[in-house]
Amino acid sequence: MSNKPLNPKGTRDFNPITLQRRRYIIDIISSTFESFGYNEIETPSIERRSTLYHKYGTEGDKFLFNIINSGEKISKADLKAFNNKNYSDFISSISEKGLRFDLTVPLARYVSQHQNEISFPFKRFQIQNVWRADRPQKGRYQEFTQCDADVIGSDSILLEFEMIQLYSSVFRKLKLNDVVIKINHRQVLNAIAKKIGVKDNFNDFVISLDKIDKVGAEKTKEELKSKFNNNSEIDKLFDIINKNPNHQEYLKLIKNYLSESDLKLLSDLETIINMIDEDKKLINIDFDISLARGLEYYTGMIYEVSLKSDSNIGSLGGGGRYKNLTEAFNLKNNSGIGISFGLDRIFHVIKDKELFPQKIALNNDILVINFGEEYISRILNLLDELRGLGKKVFIYPDNIKLSKQFSFANKNNFKDVLIYGESENQHNSIKIRNMVSGNEKDFDLKDFINNYD
Amino acid sequence: MSNKPLNPKGTRDFNPITLQRRRYIIDIISSTFESFGYNEIETPSIERRSTLYHKYGTEGDKFLFNIINSGEKISKADLKAFNNKNYSDFISSISEKGLRFDLTVPLARYVSQHQNEISFPFKRFQIQNVWRADRPQKGRYQEFTQCDADVIGSDSILLEFEMIQLYSSVFRKLKLNDVVIKINHRQVLNAIAKKIGVKDNFNDFVISLDKIDKVGAEKTKEELKSKFNNNSEIDKLFDIINKNPNHQEYLKLIKNYLSESDLKLLSDLETIINMIDEDKKLINIDFDISLARGLEYYTGMIYEVSLKSDSNIGSLGGGGRYKNLTEAFNLKNNSGIGISFGLDRIFHVIKDKELFPQKIALNNDILVINFGEEYISRILNLLDELRGLGKKVFIYPDNIKLSKQFSFANKNNFKDVLIYGESENQHNSIKIRNMVSGNEKDFDLKDFINNYD
Repeated sequence: MSNKPLNPKGTRDFNPITLQRRRYIIDIISSTFESFGYNEIETPSIERRSTLYHKYGTEGDKFLFNIINSGEKISKADLKAFNNKNYSDFISSISEKGLRFDLTVPLARYVSQHQNEISFPFKRFQIQNVWRADRPQKGRYQEFTQCDADVIGSDSILLEFEMIQLYSSVFRKLKLNDVVIKINHRQVLNAIAKKIGVKDNFNDFVISLDKIDKVGAEKTKEELKSKFNNNSEIDKLFDIINKNPNHQEYLKLIKNYLSESDLKLLSDLETIINMIDEDKKLINIDFDISLARGLEYYTGMIYEVSLKSDSNIGSLGGGGRYKNLTEAFNLKNNSGIGISFGLDRIFHVIKDKELFPQKIALNNDILVINFGEEYISRILNLLDELRGLGKKVFIYPDNIKLSKQFSFANKNNFKDVLIYGESENQHNSIKIRNMVSGNEKDFDLKDFINNYD
Repeated sequence: MSNKPLNPKGTRDFNPITLQRRRYIIDIISSTFESFGYNEIETPSIERRSTLYHKYGTEGDKFLFNIINSGEKISKADLKAFNNKNYSDFISSISEKGLRFDLTVPLARYVSQHQNEISFPFKRFQIQNVWRADRPQKGRYQEFTQCDADVIGSDSILLEFEMIQLYSSVFRKLKLNDVVIKINHRQVLNAIAKKIGVKDNFNDFVISLDKIDKVGAEKTKEELKSKFNNNSEIDKLFDIINKNPNHQEYLKLIKNYLSESDLKLLSDLETIINMIDEDKKLINIDFDISLARGLEYYTGMIYEVSLKSDSNIGSLGGGGRYKNLTEAFNLKNNSGIGISFGLDRIFHVIKDKELFPQKIALNNDILVINFGEEYISRILNLLDELRGLGKKVFIYPDNIKLSKQFSFANKNNFKDVLIYGESENQHNSIKIRNMVSGNEKDFDLKDFINNYD
């Protein structure tokens, strides 16, 4: 086999500075989750295929990374299925496990499995990798990180609002002010579809509606008219869309449009719109009638975060209310709501906008110049004290030319260089050179720890 | 397929408290690595099979989790190999990727791939999961976490000592004083083997020697004698072992035994023994002639950490010097040294000894009692201020019976419960009940933030 060192397509190595920048984002997300009382869990990367299979229709299954059974089990391969090109059954015959493709199915499995240990409502967050056998392309990876917060076991409207607070709080802390949270309600969407006369072809309806951003309202309207033959209701719908109403106007228009056919729904909408309008610290929020977010499990409010200035970047996060998530694992009547942050896209946006704090730096406080083991040995205790004070102390391991050691310090952005050679040994002193200013300062060996800053 | 919610055998879900305890250990390990100037990297969970394959002889390959190629590639399955029961070739025909089984092979791949971006000596640490298709059993998992620190690009003896400092520093901070670092030197082992007349059967020699802990010195000596027919040299060796010498005695004895045949090796040993004896803050260190740590890649000093009081628990960490790690990826002359911490075993030891700090708790500072959305709405800003001050504030989402809400607070160890209902609304006040003492205290609404602690 080839020995060319290369990570697989669609995966990435994270060097120290990139990793620290990712951690900067993760820390803001997780501390925000924590401040709202969410607790973190972790689940295994690998799940039984019976857990993962068919969770998003058969469409999702092709993104599954399947793991070959180990040991003798491989001999059970279903060659008949293979010869019939029934690859799905063939794979099932040699694979019982796969890599998770999201954190939501594992959450459903976790909650169902541990229901007796959990006290509901259960607020959990989870920041882990997921894998998708997607064709790798720019900005789309086969291994990437999701940051999810969910609440299981309550259908309180307060949680619909809390999701908006979470997004606002995180993006504000990240200084990403150019972000908009689009929200919609699946039941509003259903009610609209009903009015227009959409029946079995709901998917078709959503797919057409979703094109507004790309092809514009006018073309989308025409497409819907040609598909659903209900020009007057479609016109009315696009009157609302084209008005680009503010929240309170939106509420009125949608109330009229739906003719109070769904009182509870409208009262929920009213509650949440009032809460949003009263909270001045939220980021931009747009009610977007065309937002659908997939067809599978959302049943109420849905959210999607994107960049105002560049919608091409795609979604920075999304989520919504789901009533039936744990049903697949035989745990019923357990309404949930959750949101996800797409770490990788957020990273790229922050990088492009140069919003990473300057203070993110390597663990390079002090480089200790190596004049030989005998000198290093004499100050080992002192270096240990420095570490105890929180300093990051890198002893250059080899006694090589000074110029090379200083060039290493430069290249790796060390703040200070610590010099303890023959002269310092004679004078019981330590010399510190600041690598930015070039200034040098001598310290008395025994006072060094107290005086060095 | 069955919908029984169950994580795969050999894997684990981590609930919030377990996860926080794991983080407590990880934080100590990573901050220690950082204090020595190590920088963290991450590599993908999946690697090309060509990267992983045959890295520890064919023996290691059977622990590899192989991932089935996605899409049409599955049609290339080598049925001929399958029918010949050549499962290895069959798997190769349908799998190009696998899950990493350690962090060392990915490090070698990373260093070789990115050699032009790295300035050597490269000090990196990495704390990530690895996967092994091992038979699951108590304390042995298919997915577990390794914490590795390595230095690539220097063969300075100072690093041999630094590994000991790292272990000492971490286990001291974890308050695991019952730990011993066994050390040995592969070249000492080779020199001993040579004296005894071991040739092609070095593995056999090491396997026998390794039994001392289990069957005792006497039986091991007899086994070696029966195998290698060199009674006088074997007797001399066991004289050293049975003396259980201190470090300086060990140095003398081994110097005599090896008859100064390897001057550089003995001078290195002397340097490190002197450094160890001068540093009073190190934990227990035993020179253990029988320590071998596998046969594959270690070439110099080797380390293994275990529990003094219970050797059954197995190794809590290990590592050593390797000269040729990156050679498999065509990067030569790049000596490295590294150690690993076994997070899962360390976790169990700390748990058994009840050494986890009391302060590890859920994110449950304040539970806000729900008297209805109208009350919650009025204090949302105030709750946000509390969060800004670092408090973790959980709003009970549903307006249910007070007794149920208080019982939730109890069950989940909330410190305080915040009460803002009709009476508080009338009096512009906030009531706090301390859930430990049961004491209640009223605050003026507008002074609450300043006075609540």
